[in-house]
Amino acid sequence: MTDYITIYEVGPRDGLQNEATPVSTAQKLVLLDGLVAAGLKQIELTSFVHPKAVPQMADADAVTAAALEKYGQEQVHFVGLVLNERGYDRAYAAGCRRMAFGVAVSESFSQRNTNMSTGRAFAMLQRLLERARQDGVWTRVYLMTAWVCPFEGPTNPHKALAYAQRAWEMGIDELAIADTIGHANPLEVGRLMENVGRRTDMRRLAVHLHDTQVLGLANVYAAIAAGVRIIDSSVGGLGGCPFAPGAAGNLSTEDLVFLAFKLGMGTGVDYEKLWRVVAYLDSIITRPVGGRIRAWWESNYGAEPAFSQP
Amino acid sequence: MTDYITIYEVGPRDGLQNEATPVSTAQKLVLLDGLVAAGLKQIELTSFVHPKAVPQMADADAVTAAALEKYGQEQVHFVGLVLNERGYDRAYAAGCRRMAFGVAVSESFSQRNTNMSTGRAFAMLQRLLERARQDGVWTRVYLMTAWVCPFEGPTNPHKALAYAQRAWEMGIDELAIADTIGHANPLEVGRLMENVGRRTDMRRLAVHLHDTQVLGLANVYAAIAAGVRIIDSSVGGLGGCPFAPGAAGNLSTEDLVFLAFKLGMGTGVDYEKLWRVVAYLDSIITRPVGGRIRAWWESNYGAEPAFSQP
Repeated sequence: MTDYITIYEVGPRDGLQNEATPVSTAQKLVLLDGLVAAGLKQIELTSFVHPKAVPQMADADAVTAAALEKYGQEQVHFVGLVLNERGYDRAYAAGCRRMAFGVAVSESFSQRNTNMSTGRAFAMLQRLLERARQDGVWTRVYLMTAWVCPFEGPTNPHKALAYAQRAWEMGIDELAIADTIGHANPLEVGRLMENVGRRTDMRRLAVHLHDTQVLGLANVYAAIAAGVRIIDSSVGGLGGCPFAPGAAGNLSTEDLVFLAFKLGMGTGVDYEKLWRVVAYLDSIITRPVGGRIRAWWESNYGAEPAFSQP
Repeated sequence: MTDYITIYEVGPRDGLQNEATPVSTAQKLVLLDGLVAAGLKQIELTSFVHPKAVPQMADADAVTAAALEKYGQEQVHFVGLVLNERGYDRAYAAGCRRMAFGVAVSESFSQRNTNMSTGRAFAMLQRLLERARQDGVWTRVYLMTAWVCPFEGPTNPHKALAYAQRAWEMGIDELAIADTIGHANPLEVGRLMENVGRRTDMRRLAVHLHDTQVLGLANVYAAIAAGVRIIDSSVGGLGGCPFAPGAAGNLSTEDLVFLAFKLGMGTGVDYEKLWRVVAYLDSIITRPVGGRIRAWWESNYGAEPAFSQP
């Protein structure tokens, strides 16, 4: 395998979606400029979800249109999360040509999170993928609750593997195996990623981890050791304070880049510029942000200045 | 390999030695009672170093005598760190029958830390081991700067392996490979432990990690995956704030026990009782203590009450 890690930045979507602080469209676009300047080339930009469900994502159409106008479709790969056909319509109309969909392994999670059985979720995924194929849209599928479900507890790894294969065989561009609530452990992360990788294509397999139980770095290392080279992370660890009960806390992009550096692996990210994005987040997010490495890094190398705020 | 992890608790020695807050003998003995009550059975108790060099360890003789009087030699294995023959004399006179010695891989570190070349350090180790053999003393050897030296940078892994074998072949009971400054990465931790394990005996091989660069859990997972089952840790993450430049920050026992639990591995540690020790440390150490999992744990399960303070 390559020694290069492709970072799939989820801060603008999975990150902000779980932050209580409202972030304006203008602020999101500054954040985006910072991420692009730092060298991030795969960015999940927003979610085409109903504004009442997730007010933070109400400007999905505007953010997408603005990002595409500025950067086009190729310089950076912007992905929109789409949960249903209405979302697909909106995303496509906004110019989005890279979409992420999701299915859960856990029946309870599927019911409570999307109000559908996993059977219906797969059927809808099939319809969305059919449209995407016709429209030439690049597709990613999240396999949610791949290790632990908040309602059912540990996920049967055979079921996770079977669902991963099922999604894969529908003909998708990228499959992201997700530790939705951040309760996975490195042994099982490594095993599942290795098993899914053997049955699919490791080069188009991603892992999506949360740092809820402070095992984010151990889990991502296990995934890397298993051969995974596409890794989701969130600048500043956006996605809710990992210390708050039930909060999300994505693996932070800073921690991931640092780990890659320690492992001698490339990411294409300019670390100084990434810290400037974190410093910018300080000014717009009302809780402390930044990955676990931040304190050590700044005590050794100092803090980077933020961007100017719009 | 077994799925049981033997924790070698270094809080009373490597932990306190690097804490600025003076801790009294009475407080140390309360700490010790807490550790024993929590189920820790391998405890590095103190260092027989010159009191001027490390004032925190000035009561090494008294602490050892008191611990042995209360618990004897078998119920718990108490280890004293010994740096030279004078230290050996003191340790033996205090009743210590389990001793830890050290040699560094890095020449610069050996010179600056012990004022000896590595050649002289190995010669002294030989003399100490000879006495230990005659006295029936159990022995552990730390291989310091096994991955990174603060003066020389990355350690040549072949040299680390050669030095590990050299120490092993002197006939020791336990070999602890140490990331002295906490700059190792999980890839190299896993590789070296696997290589040393193949050439020695994994059942008597330990890993000693610091969490300086927040890779403690990732590194220890890599060691576990490589087959290591004796792991050093420090209650409360004692050993200096990991956020302060140059500070030590041992891997915390709480984090290690939590990881073992997540991996389905036993440790024999009563987690609630361990948190009571951490709560006790709150009352005697003037900086915030506790492993990285502490905030999450307490927000989910509440804080344990401390012991009464002497």
